[in-house]
Amino acid sequence: MSRVSRRTLFGAGIGAVGVGAGLGIAGAEAVGHDGAPAAAGSRTYPFHGDHQAGIVTPAQDRLHFAAFDVTTDSREELVALLKAWTEAAARMTQGRSAGPVGPTEGDYDLPPDDTGEAIGLPASGLTITFGFGPTLFRSEDGTDRFGLAGKQPAALAPLPHFPGDDLDPARSDGDLCVQACADDPQVAVHAIRNLARIGFGTVAVRWSQLGFGRTSSTSTSQQTPRNLFGFKDGTANVKAEERRALDAHVWVADGDDRAGDWMVGGSYLTARRVNMTVEVWDRQPLGDQEKFIGRTKAEGAPLSGGGEFHRPDFTMKGDGGPIIPTDSHVSVVHPDHNGGVRMLRRGYNFVDGTDALGGLNAGLFFLAFVRDPRTHFIPVQNSMAHNDAMMEYLKFTGSALFAVPPGTRPGEHVGQALFA
Amino acid sequence: MSRVSRRTLFGAGIGAVGVGAGLGIAGAEAVGHDGAPAAAGSRTYPFHGDHQAGIVTPAQDRLHFAAFDVTTDSREELVALLKAWTEAAARMTQGRSAGPVGPTEGDYDLPPDDTGEAIGLPASGLTITFGFGPTLFRSEDGTDRFGLAGKQPAALAPLPHFPGDDLDPARSDGDLCVQACADDPQVAVHAIRNLARIGFGTVAVRWSQLGFGRTSSTSTSQQTPRNLFGFKDGTANVKAEERRALDAHVWVADGDDRAGDWMVGGSYLTARRVNMTVEVWDRQPLGDQEKFIGRTKAEGAPLSGGGEFHRPDFTMKGDGGPIIPTDSHVSVVHPDHNGGVRMLRRGYNFVDGTDALGGLNAGLFFLAFVRDPRTHFIPVQNSMAHNDAMMEYLKFTGSALFAVPPGTRPGEHVGQALFA
Repeated sequence: MSRVSRRTLFGAGIGAVGVGAGLGIAGAEAVGHDGAPAAAGSRTYPFHGDHQAGIVTPAQDRLHFAAFDVTTDSREELVALLKAWTEAAARMTQGRSAGPVGPTEGDYDLPPDDTGEAIGLPASGLTITFGFGPTLFRSEDGTDRFGLAGKQPAALAPLPHFPGDDLDPARSDGDLCVQACADDPQVAVHAIRNLARIGFGTVAVRWSQLGFGRTSSTSTSQQTPRNLFGFKDGTANVKAEERRALDAHVWVADGDDRAGDWMVGGSYLTARRVNMTVEVWDRQPLGDQEKFIGRTKAEGAPLSGGGEFHRPDFTMKGDGGPIIPTDSHVSVVHPDHNGGVRMLRRGYNFVDGTDALGGLNAGLFFLAFVRDPRTHFIPVQNSMAHNDAMMEYLKFTGSALFAVPPGTRPGEHVGQALFA
Repeated sequence: MSRVSRRTLFGAGIGAVGVGAGLGIAGAEAVGHDGAPAAAGSRTYPFHGDHQAGIVTPAQDRLHFAAFDVTTDSREELVALLKAWTEAAARMTQGRSAGPVGPTEGDYDLPPDDTGEAIGLPASGLTITFGFGPTLFRSEDGTDRFGLAGKQPAALAPLPHFPGDDLDPARSDGDLCVQACADDPQVAVHAIRNLARIGFGTVAVRWSQLGFGRTSSTSTSQQTPRNLFGFKDGTANVKAEERRALDAHVWVADGDDRAGDWMVGGSYLTARRVNMTVEVWDRQPLGDQEKFIGRTKAEGAPLSGGGEFHRPDFTMKGDGGPIIPTDSHVSVVHPDHNGGVRMLRRGYNFVDGTDALGGLNAGLFFLAFVRDPRTHFIPVQNSMAHNDAMMEYLKFTGSALFAVPPGTRPGEHVGQALFA
């Protein structure tokens, strides 16, 4: 049996329900065609909508993220690629093959439209999210390759250098990005690989990053996971259910940016590869670890008391100072100390083998969606870089910023308003 | 609630059943304490037994593999490490913390015995398998650091150079290895990290490799998965249920090796990192792909007909030659063409970011357990390197050989007979 028919048999009912149910988090309620809750693997999220999927979608467990350089100067080729990517993403997120000719039923004298390693696997909650880097609008030498310079949002300026940055250019920046999240890494890898294959001759992969063990919840329905410091991460994250907070902190609104009208309903994605010196961290006493974070390791509760979701009391006194140290991570990045700004974080743990010193090349691939990086990311990152005790155990080795356009309607391609 | 108590509450019944049920594949039948089949995440395999777990155990979906250099010359410190590793592995495979003091209930002035990122996660089918490299017995300069040279099995000689090898020394060899397999990558990473932490000062990580999407079945209860060429992989693998084949091809038997008596019940593990040029492969016509493999892409059936498990007919004629080409992978590595030898393969797909040419740094981390690499691996690899059409799309970038000692009984440490 071919992949298309197998996957269609398996996923059609679910996909249809997902589309009918609407957008964003609605997909989390996906049910099998018999009305029973769908197994994790068969979860399907709609591709089309007001916002791109993969932002407020309940964070899946696995990530493959890729940044691409556009290797053509042709605006037409770029638009053709975005059309082809949109079509393939709409298919794959519904558990179908990347192209109309599945991996095994094509002409024996032609390469298949799909690489085949996802044959028989369900959609696994796959979402595919596209973004545009600053260099798509103006190359590093200032060239306006695609006639887009006039539409570059002021918010999409390259990020400044931060203290603690030790960036590898080969792990930073990019003209385009694709974030593929799924509950099965083979499905996420399949998606990125097929998009890279479709883009052959138009784009080249600049860097890519695999991640596992989502380090933030994006829905109140999810338990808070743990990062590689062993602490819960993302307790105070903006959640999909907080519609007002999403509007205030995540989605670009009408009038936010004159040049960036096409971004209304979109968001800005900062991607930061943060190496953690886990071996050194692991030798710190439990009490010190908790003081660095400002929360307990067991429950993730603020050191001022209560449970995980209890509001930290930064005024409570302990031995010789605030019981939540002023240089603890929770204090430094808390909205109360950052003008009230919040981010929607969607990062993943990573382990990329071994570093030169025999330690694990491991850490957090930080992904955050914000309405404006100038107000919602840069000041917080600067404050963290200067004041956060945890910085001693972190090294930033990759960095990128992308404009993530709003969602597409059927028949449109991703970023269509940018090229209108 | 502390991790130990949470995980104990969750896993105790299952762990107890697992231990009681015996060894090896018995764990696959693990049931919850109510007698119902356990969910995938709560699967627990016994650590103790005649053979180490993680060989015939039904292949889990995720891998973290690490090779270590021993940084001490002290035999006592090496034995102390193996004792500590055995104890920690016995605990973690049962869903417990790495040491008696869990990650959150210890002295606040001391580092915890466990790093904490697996708090709240079930055992997830974790197995931990240990091996000894040739350099543990004799350093590259011939030094007998630990008084083990006289016990080096003849089978444990460094692998020869093969055509197609482009080995990175930083991804090859090692004095010790640990293979951690689990259904959750965070659990596998947690295991390797905690063993590395325990070994601090005695060993250093030499290289490590993450993998996903097991590329072989090791049990008839499993479906055959797909590699990154999109083809089923491991159809003809030695399976846990084939007791006679295991004895003939996988387990070291009494009398196999004079120096290696301590290896009876063990096996030899070859680890080969095989980069696949997937971008080039993806541009090959479907018919050519099938001729390279010798099987159909859809079903994995031999090109001579039948279903996946049908015996290939190498004599059947097609257009101008055998219908299964003589240089196809299935023909080159088939036992009929290799003196009847078989391997127990247990490899994983990997994607490690991007290569210098903008392609995916991706492929297969090949793991195979054999009774003797001189008869069961080296000739087959040589034949493949010389004759296999698939070699055009492969580059071997890492290689290592390890002696995997037999299993341990409670109170013993791994490799105890070697040091007796």
